Amino acid sequence: MKILDALLGRPLASWEDRAEKIGAPQGIPIFGLDALSSAAYGPEAAMTLLIPLGMAGVHFVLPITAAILALLTILYFSYRQTIAAYPNGGGSYTVAGENLGPVVGLLAGSALMVDYILEVAVGISAGVGALVSALPKLQPHTLALCLAILAILTVLNLRGARSSGIIFMAPTYLFIVCLLAVIAWGAVKVILSGGHPHPVVAPPQLGHATAVLSLWLLLKAFSSGCTAMTGVEAVSNGVCAFQEPRQKSAQFTLTIIIALLAVLLLGIAFLAPAYRIAATDPFAPGYQSVLSQLIAAVSGRGLFYYVSIASILLVLALSANTGFADFPRLCHNVARDRYLPFAFTLRGRRLVYSGGVYVLALAAAFLLILFRGVTDRLIPLFAIGAFLAFTLSQAGMVQHWRRKRGQGWQLSMTVNGIGAVATGITVCVVLVTKFTSGAWITALVIPTMILLMLAIHHHYLWVGRQVAAKEALDTGKMSQPIVILPIPGWDRVTAKGLRFALSISSEVYCIHVKNDEGEQPLAPLWKKNVTGPLQQAGLPQPNLIQLESPTRRVLAPILDQIGELEQQNPGRQLLVLLPELIESRWYFYALHNQRATLLKTMLYLRGAQHTVVANIPWYLEPRPDATSKPE
Amino acid sequence: MKILDALLGRPLASWEDRAEKIGAPQGIPIFGLDALSSAAYGPEAAMTLLIPLGMAGVHFVLPITAAILALLTILYFSYRQTIAAYPNGGGSYTVAGENLGPVVGLLAGSALMVDYILEVAVGISAGVGALVSALPKLQPHTLALCLAILAILTVLNLRGARSSGIIFMAPTYLFIVCLLAVIAWGAVKVILSGGHPHPVVAPPQLGHATAVLSLWLLLKAFSSGCTAMTGVEAVSNGVCAFQEPRQKSAQFTLTIIIALLAVLLLGIAFLAPAYRIAATDPFAPGYQSVLSQLIAAVSGRGLFYYVSIASILLVLALSANTGFADFPRLCHNVARDRYLPFAFTLRGRRLVYSGGVYVLALAAAFLLILFRGVTDRLIPLFAIGAFLAFTLSQAGMVQHWRRKRGQGWQLSMTVNGIGAVATGITVCVVLVTKFTSGAWITALVIPTMILLMLAIHHHYLWVGRQVAAKEALDTGKMSQPIVILPIPGWDRVTAKGLRFALSISSEVYCIHVKNDEGEQPLAPLWKKNVTGPLQQAGLPQPNLIQLESPTRRVLAPILDQIGELEQQNPGRQLLVLLPELIESRWYFYALHNQRATLLKTMLYLRGAQHTVVANIPWYLEPRPDATSKPE
Repeated sequence: MKILDALLGRPLASWEDRAEKIGAPQGIPIFGLDALSSAAYGPEAAMTLLIPLGMAGVHFVLPITAAILALLTILYFSYRQTIAAYPNGGGSYTVAGENLGPVVGLLAGSALMVDYILEVAVGISAGVGALVSALPKLQPHTLALCLAILAILTVLNLRGARSSGIIFMAPTYLFIVCLLAVIAWGAVKVILSGGHPHPVVAPPQLGHATAVLSLWLLLKAFSSGCTAMTGVEAVSNGVCAFQEPRQKSAQFTLTIIIALLAVLLLGIAFLAPAYRIAATDPFAPGYQSVLSQLIAAVSGRGLFYYVSIASILLVLALSANTGFADFPRLCHNVARDRYLPFAFTLRGRRLVYSGGVYVLALAAAFLLILFRGVTDRLIPLFAIGAFLAFTLSQAGMVQHWRRKRGQGWQLSMTVNGIGAVATGITVCVVLVTKFTSGAWITALVIPTMILLMLAIHHHYLWVGRQVAAKEALDTGKMSQPIVILPIPGWDRVTAKGLRFALSISSEVYCIHVKNDEGEQPLAPLWKKNVTGPLQQAGLPQPNLIQLESPTRRVLAPILDQIGELEQQNPGRQLLVLLPELIESRWYFYALHNQRATLLKTMLYLRGAQHTVVANIPWYLEPRPDATSKPE
Repeated sequence: MKILDALLGRPLASWEDRAEKIGAPQGIPIFGLDALSSAAYGPEAAMTLLIPLGMAGVHFVLPITAAILALLTILYFSYRQTIAAYPNGGGSYTVAGENLGPVVGLLAGSALMVDYILEVAVGISAGVGALVSALPKLQPHTLALCLAILAILTVLNLRGARSSGIIFMAPTYLFIVCLLAVIAWGAVKVILSGGHPHPVVAPPQLGHATAVLSLWLLLKAFSSGCTAMTGVEAVSNGVCAFQEPRQKSAQFTLTIIIALLAVLLLGIAFLAPAYRIAATDPFAPGYQSVLSQLIAAVSGRGLFYYVSIASILLVLALSANTGFADFPRLCHNVARDRYLPFAFTLRGRRLVYSGGVYVLALAAAFLLILFRGVTDRLIPLFAIGAFLAFTLSQAGMVQHWRRKRGQGWQLSMTVNGIGAVATGITVCVVLVTKFTSGAWITALVIPTMILLMLAIHHHYLWVGRQVAAKEALDTGKMSQPIVILPIPGWDRVTAKGLRFALSISSEVYCIHVKNDEGEQPLAPLWKKNVTGPLQQAGLPQPNLIQLESPTRRVLAPILDQIGELEQQNPGRQLLVLLPELIESRWYFYALHNQRATLLKTMLYLRGAQHTVVANIPWYLEPRPDATSKPE
């Protein structure tokens, strides 16, 4: 287990559960990384659409950002209320489901799942995109870099929340400090120079206008810019990960995250026109990201520039971690309601819902491979899921206040109502403006997922009805089972199995398939080691069945023999004993037991109602030289 | 099982084994596809290296091809002898291992494994490369296309050899007919025009010479051109797949494959200089493959051109199938000698060694992703594995004749000796000329694989020693086991488990963890359904242990309780019964039993020597509406 331990951390006992709770200092990186890092691609996504307007486009950055900030403020007050009302984690799934019915909950849930998967894919691809703009030599390896980062994140998240929180703290705080410094420094320069600062490194010349201003263009830019808000719901989903008083801790964390995000977005929108910075075509040579231009213009290309860029790269890539923190929790909640396989509710060695982590990693890998790690192609799929979940969550909160009618419920309801309407309009805008460039994929996937989850739910209900028992235990005719032990020869594993078989039943069949030419004949060994001693002890004898196999196949003859015994003993229980070698080191597991697993699967596929399969573990000792080099 | 059946074909019973044997008409596509399709990338790989010589380079195509053909002839006679001497499949692994010792055998085996993986990757990438040269719009999706084709091939090969043979026959024969027609037609034109034919569509203008002729350059071109010979060993590995008389069938197939390959290579080398065709830079705009130029020059860009190109695309992509036919067989042979995990010897539903198919698909996918589906980068890794295997196989045959000394052994030994020397020299040439451009990867991977396989072998030997038993069966103190049954509540599955438990032992513990608030209390149900009836029947009562779980965790309390029972009963056997729901449809499997699997794994990880786990199957009936649409 040594390598697994090093990779994933030693297994946590269940009493360590409580120690995994976090406060605001850890909560900001874990739940805020995505929201904050959105500042690195959201404004740029909007400004890229303004490129055709040339210099005129630069002046629309501030109004668009103002609209986004207004929406962000509404979202902030809405989610503060959600955290207070749902201390056990009020994800959109829970809120919409409890208040608007399970199908609406599933709509919110599947929208969020899509959103988290895209958060991971976009975060990683944007980080790698920034890295390869800084180091163009790495460009050919974009996809490989994306997948490598995804693999690292997956491993970190299988280790559990706390340790990954620590790993994510340093880069996030570095990122915040660097960007705040650039904004403050740049703002001072703008004010001192009377609005016309002199850039240390001049940004690239702007192209000429190739399109005229239209409302459609501004709406498209706004839709892309809305990706800057993705991730703000993460805190409300993870309330129960916070230390007590958890609602206060979570609200405090949310306040800081949103305030920081607003300062970053506003700062970029204020400085970009002052320094005459516009987005550059990501497919043309000489592409440079907006943030890179801005930092270079304010501070020059010195040490500070490279530290800032490094922190952006790191934070963008790690922002994917919000998805990793939340996707498995969401799947757990949905699975607890029996809309997803039960396996998503199981926690692994490090008290992490590992099933969700694996599914998320696979889905993100699929997206990255499909879009070859290019952020620009992923953006249109992105915002719609997030805003759909926002809308349903706020609508659910409206219904919540209407039902509950506590103190000041009208005000609370109004706040969430405004949130629902504003985000609802945004969903429509995003869906319409981005439909042909990729939003249709999201619009197709979400209903499919809902249908799938409903089908799973119906199946669980049906299985529940089928196994429900009204009748009492049938006490008639409980005879000893017939025990069947397939044996490869006479060894200690066989001896252990045979002892167990004889302790359960007096009717034991040992099946041996002769398949190796060089093999020792079994009969004399059997007589000496089994028949003799049992006779002496006056115990019942097992039946030895020896089979030939001209085709060297082993499983088929054993299966046929078991089938025969079933037919000869109708109604009797059969117990097939399969020894299983347990290795001291996990990486030896692949070396054994596959034949036993296959035999068990084949037995079950045949539908043998009366056959029970038991695995008898045989613990191998660690090899003395196993830690030294292989010979 | 319906979808699996459609995808992979219905499961084959073991008596259908014999029907899978093939003759030459199926053998040529299955075992010759790769060798023949090498004609589409081998000459081009050599000619690409001659580009810097300009027009002068065109004249070296024929001498280089002559060298390659000489080597091919030597290989042909060598492998004819191998087929005759090893009717059960004389792969390089078997021949080198039997005659030169197991470590040399492993060297040949790992060289071949690397070679097969590259065959798959290069075949697919070359096919997709040709496709995207014909349809440049698809270029951005190169990698996705590669992976899609890999997935299709994997599924076809999981279906088994015969059906995939039929699928591959048509494109291969179309390819052969088209290329032979082009060569014949072109040759006639050359002769009629006195050596200066007029191309129907002129090939691109040749660039000026930018390098001077050197032996080094010619050796590099020869090394790349040697990839045209990869795959010729496939027939000798698969002799036992042929129908009787299998040696004759296999030799006949080999003869046809090599003759066709020689005609194709010679034809290209003869026509290219006549039509003044050279390779074009694959990274520059206007790239066109040599075969495309040749066909267009001979026949023009009519229907025949497009049919030929389509057959080349298809055959290149499907050539990967040789790897799929041979890699699993090789792994099976190595695993039978206990140098690879035992699982590689198991045959799945369609009598295919599915383990090898999966490993091959994963490794090829890894290479394709790493090199983004570009053939040119894979070529340097390729030839070395194949020629290393050739060399070792021929050297093994030399030793074989020396030992056996049958009729005319001196001649046979000389033939194989020439083969060994010629291919050995080629290995050195390839290794030296291609070392920095990628051969070092192969040179690193092969020794690593050998070390790994030796480690696996030593582990198997060690396990064998550990479980070997000299002592007889211990007949002392065989008491009934204590049976433990974790129960979620009272239902039919619990009832079945309890009946089984009571039939084995009078000492039964039922463990129930209360974890759901809304749950019915178990005690009254238990009294009515279990305690009462058993009392009436005068049977022993099971002990019911009820546990609380404030953290809603279920497995931990059960594990702790089992540990306690172990401690209270030292030396006694414990049998834990875990019910397993068996679904009628495979796609429902993911919905159940993970908790039972996890509990079993945790029990075994704890190393409980005396605990045996048995799975009691409960067969669910198919849902009446399961075939209709999900609600």
